[in-house]
Amino acid sequence: MHQYRKLYHRLTPLSAVVETVEEKVSLKPKGTELIEISRAVNRVLAEDVRAAVNIPPFNRSMVDGYAVISDDLSEAYENNPVKLRVVGRIFAGERPKIEFKHGECVEVATGALIPYPADAVVPVEFTRKIGDDEILVYNRVGHGENVDYVGSDAVVGEVIVHKGTVLTPELIGSIASIGIRKVRVYSQVSACIYSIGNELVEPGERIIEGQIYDSNAYMVAAHLQASGVSADIRGIIADDFREIKEKIDEALQKYDVVITIGGTSAGLEDITYKVASTYNPGIIVHGVKIKPGRPTFIAANKDKLIVGLPGFPFSCLVASELILIPIISKITGVKGADRRVVEAFLLAPVRGKPGLTRIIPVLVRRRNDTYFAYPFMLRSSSAIKLTSFNGFLTIPEGIEGLSKDAKVKVILRRGYREEDIVFVGSHCPLAEELLLKLRGKYNVKYLFVGSTGGLRVLKTGISDIAGSHLLDPETGQYNIPFIHRHGLKNVVVVRGYYREQGFIARKDALKKVDSILDIIKNNYRFINRNKGSGTRVLVDLMIKNEAEELGISFREIRNRIRGYWFEARNHYSVASLIKAGRADIGVAIKYVAVLYGLDFKPISREIYDFIFTKNSLKHEPIRDFLAILGDKAMEDIIKKYPGYHLHPDSGKVIYSC
Amino acid sequence: MHQYRKLYHRLTPLSAVVETVEEKVSLKPKGTELIEISRAVNRVLAEDVRAAVNIPPFNRSMVDGYAVISDDLSEAYENNPVKLRVVGRIFAGERPKIEFKHGECVEVATGALIPYPADAVVPVEFTRKIGDDEILVYNRVGHGENVDYVGSDAVVGEVIVHKGTVLTPELIGSIASIGIRKVRVYSQVSACIYSIGNELVEPGERIIEGQIYDSNAYMVAAHLQASGVSADIRGIIADDFREIKEKIDEALQKYDVVITIGGTSAGLEDITYKVASTYNPGIIVHGVKIKPGRPTFIAANKDKLIVGLPGFPFSCLVASELILIPIISKITGVKGADRRVVEAFLLAPVRGKPGLTRIIPVLVRRRNDTYFAYPFMLRSSSAIKLTSFNGFLTIPEGIEGLSKDAKVKVILRRGYREEDIVFVGSHCPLAEELLLKLRGKYNVKYLFVGSTGGLRVLKTGISDIAGSHLLDPETGQYNIPFIHRHGLKNVVVVRGYYREQGFIARKDALKKVDSILDIIKNNYRFINRNKGSGTRVLVDLMIKNEAEELGISFREIRNRIRGYWFEARNHYSVASLIKAGRADIGVAIKYVAVLYGLDFKPISREIYDFIFTKNSLKHEPIRDFLAILGDKAMEDIIKKYPGYHLHPDSGKVIYSC
Repeated sequence: MHQYRKLYHRLTPLSAVVETVEEKVSLKPKGTELIEISRAVNRVLAEDVRAAVNIPPFNRSMVDGYAVISDDLSEAYENNPVKLRVVGRIFAGERPKIEFKHGECVEVATGALIPYPADAVVPVEFTRKIGDDEILVYNRVGHGENVDYVGSDAVVGEVIVHKGTVLTPELIGSIASIGIRKVRVYSQVSACIYSIGNELVEPGERIIEGQIYDSNAYMVAAHLQASGVSADIRGIIADDFREIKEKIDEALQKYDVVITIGGTSAGLEDITYKVASTYNPGIIVHGVKIKPGRPTFIAANKDKLIVGLPGFPFSCLVASELILIPIISKITGVKGADRRVVEAFLLAPVRGKPGLTRIIPVLVRRRNDTYFAYPFMLRSSSAIKLTSFNGFLTIPEGIEGLSKDAKVKVILRRGYREEDIVFVGSHCPLAEELLLKLRGKYNVKYLFVGSTGGLRVLKTGISDIAGSHLLDPETGQYNIPFIHRHGLKNVVVVRGYYREQGFIARKDALKKVDSILDIIKNNYRFINRNKGSGTRVLVDLMIKNEAEELGISFREIRNRIRGYWFEARNHYSVASLIKAGRADIGVAIKYVAVLYGLDFKPISREIYDFIFTKNSLKHEPIRDFLAILGDKAMEDIIKKYPGYHLHPDSGKVIYSC
Repeated sequence: MHQYRKLYHRLTPLSAVVETVEEKVSLKPKGTELIEISRAVNRVLAEDVRAAVNIPPFNRSMVDGYAVISDDLSEAYENNPVKLRVVGRIFAGERPKIEFKHGECVEVATGALIPYPADAVVPVEFTRKIGDDEILVYNRVGHGENVDYVGSDAVVGEVIVHKGTVLTPELIGSIASIGIRKVRVYSQVSACIYSIGNELVEPGERIIEGQIYDSNAYMVAAHLQASGVSADIRGIIADDFREIKEKIDEALQKYDVVITIGGTSAGLEDITYKVASTYNPGIIVHGVKIKPGRPTFIAANKDKLIVGLPGFPFSCLVASELILIPIISKITGVKGADRRVVEAFLLAPVRGKPGLTRIIPVLVRRRNDTYFAYPFMLRSSSAIKLTSFNGFLTIPEGIEGLSKDAKVKVILRRGYREEDIVFVGSHCPLAEELLLKLRGKYNVKYLFVGSTGGLRVLKTGISDIAGSHLLDPETGQYNIPFIHRHGLKNVVVVRGYYREQGFIARKDALKKVDSILDIIKNNYRFINRNKGSGTRVLVDLMIKNEAEELGISFREIRNRIRGYWFEARNHYSVASLIKAGRADIGVAIKYVAVLYGLDFKPISREIYDFIFTKNSLKHEPIRDFLAILGDKAMEDIIKKYPGYHLHPDSGKVIYSC
């Protein structure tokens, strides 16, 4: 087999990248500086901040009252007050050297120093003055009551914030509280980001087909900023050697690290790495043994780094989080930047990649103190939203695959948080609105992967709720037969609502279409939906019925439909491809037809249901979502959605097994 | 009983604060503005950001190769290549209107548009050119392989970021990816913070006894900034009516909200609220029915707010998080700012406060999918580090108390995260260093509450590890007898290390002291440790032995020690109070004597052990900590700690039950 394009010959293992770079370039922090804490947000501490005083620096009173020896009041009650002599008075901020003995006390204000040997403060409400220097106390106080003890917040020598920490406003508050106004931080690392590619368009510009917006730069900038690096987004450069060289030359004057995104795959127009080769020492790492992320390169000009990240969003994310940030953290001096790794049980088998460490995005969840990881094994790993997963599963290069239930190590993504509600199922704008009602109160994650995908994922237990609109032609029932077919147990089905499904097309095209056969007759370019979607089931059912009527095979009709294999992943995509003229006709819900200003011809009124695991219903967030489905307010909400209708059983449990 | 100072008469219930303020002042956002996304970090979105295009906007190729109809290649194998005609070529960024049919294909670059009706891309490595417009394909491709589907990241009309969200760099990346460069945000709310009190000192200034550093301002500023508010810290004002009035007058010209901290308790020098009363409408809320946080006031001058927060750190924190931020979030337009509330089981009984909603700081942890809350029922609720708890338990005013195991609602603190390792036990600088080794890799929380406190907390299951140095005089054994006494089960004891305990005092004072009796003889001011601490046990044991020798009672000796009841909460405090001249002598570990430059006279070599719950050892983070205790490296670490020594069994499990 002939390979006529350059491949990556000296791929560097992921674990060796930092070391390999360090052999050629120093990755130490460039120096330190002493700065005011008010300017120190996002900077990295170069030395431990230790308390030089105790906080509070003395035992102080929590209330206005009298500092006493609590033993003196052991017999004080409302009907048996104890008399004490007042031998002094202390306000907040004062430090008289008063000492007193049994039978005496000292008047103290809130925040005032408590004199030796007082061990408690009796609040003023429980006392009465009976002369210039005597009080009656009507209540006993416990030993230590109303005393804020010296050093309870911080003691001398205690480390308040550790070296290598990125300073947040909260931490700066802690530093201020121990009286420190200036801190020593590492010199800030400056980075700039260029996006490279003829297909890229700046946000705000008009986009035409074939072009895409440059979003990677903002993502990488966010990663850098979170690591204490100042990151400038410098815009887009076309795939042109001279232009790229000119911009990098210029950036190397000003920045410690120059980052390029895109233009790195061994493709037709791969030139960024050639530019990077012109420097000294030039390319240090050309290609990393991971997939995705392989085309990443690391080069240097003297002690300045040039890092080339791949342009596909998921590849760029992996390369940024797992390659770029670990290198940069060496220069910034950030400690504890190691990624958090947990042991998890795998919920579906995965395959490795010969000769490469494979990185698979996973959804991680903790159940009964055990982590579980659900891998997104999509053919195109970028075809998922970058926000939909929260961990990276790494499959070492020697491993062919990992079976379900294997114990694996998962790298948690930065900002990992545990989800209270996980919905995985068929795409539905109304379901999305209902889920969003609980945002703020709970952490809510939803992924739209189709009805069948939703049921499959629900079976693994990683999700709490699935949304499905699968019609069983035998029984005419929605969803319930599929629960059995997928072997789901311990679930309940809650009736959702009706949605109108139908043909959608640009103005007037629908006049001639009432069936699949009409599409073939008119030689329309059809756009299908992905396998496993409820809509695909509907389309195939229509084909089957028409084939039976005509006495020909399903396969024959299918092959005569132009574009039967051309898939869209959701209702919106069907509508938008038709709107853009890439296809003529498809099947989708009325809602998107209205949204895109397309014509709609109804085929059926389908039912969209919610399937809950019984286990999830133990948890309040899930019960809250269930309550929303059955709430009166649904009537008003559903009115905003063209083609949506309530069902007599909406919000009711219609099945349990 | 006479009450000669002002109390709060018209206290407002916590739940009614926002409503009460809204009756007098509008809390709506002041307006909106359209700004560049690059300037929008920390601003609050005033409208949903929706995708105006699909992302990606077309089906695109993940690889360099040939766009094909996958069915054409169903028989393609390495020894049976399939021939296809190449009818065109598409680069990234181009949009030719190529269409093709069975037996044909189109060459595509990575990122290029996939022409209709292709449903897959065969990578170039699996092909061979056999002429200008023909290729052989040596591998089948699955349907959809190497295709990045239109709309898989975002579809037209999909809400990308919701109205009311505070924009982060990550979110701005998402907005850029859908081609949007300007967003509509609410006018930014500006706030300034004054700290009021004669006892306050700016960080960086020298502090004398009786004074404290102003740290609340930084904490409140951090809360405000996290809510999208620009917050200026304006420094300290003395307790002076004229000066406070002048500063607030001036601030009202410039800021939407003026915040004062301190000077609000009904105390000797409470004047801030009097200043606030001079405006119109003036005081709206004077005192809130919660404890702590009661002295909070809310006032207004026309539509500008003046909020007075109490000065004690925990009171200030509660008032800021539960009163100030909910009000401000109305003005900023932040949605989902509601505090996250979970149901938890209470691990120790708590008492309410008559007439007030009591707020108790709790440590929340999830175990087997159930939340548990451990209340910090210290006499002085500010006597804990503000970072040591992660939730607020609220006890409504009618409730006298809640028993252990009660199901309660807990408000999680902003930035709540689940801990991997929780250590609660006796204070030990070495234990702290060992725990910090796992920082970065795991979330680690440690609280120093004394040996006995540590065992008690361990018994509730909220902590994983306790540190203890309790000597049983009967058996001469450390810690193990106390495990039985506290009824602990399913725990293992891991031997820690030796620590030298002894008398500490300023230079030369120790010459005359070899016993407790010597302290009494010299009339030295003794400083004791808190009950439940291992050191207190040691002191009481010494008193008991000496009393027995002299044939007098424990109580008698105890009462003759000056300052027996005067407690310090940890070793550092003992040393610092002696250093400051507030006491003459105490008992502490050698380490702090060296740290503070004090004299040290050894009493005993005690043992500090680590007690683990067996349940916790199922978890990797805990096993990692156990491994550190038994590691060879301990030898080098311990050398840095004066008075610390390894034990022959260091790191070994010495007991299990």
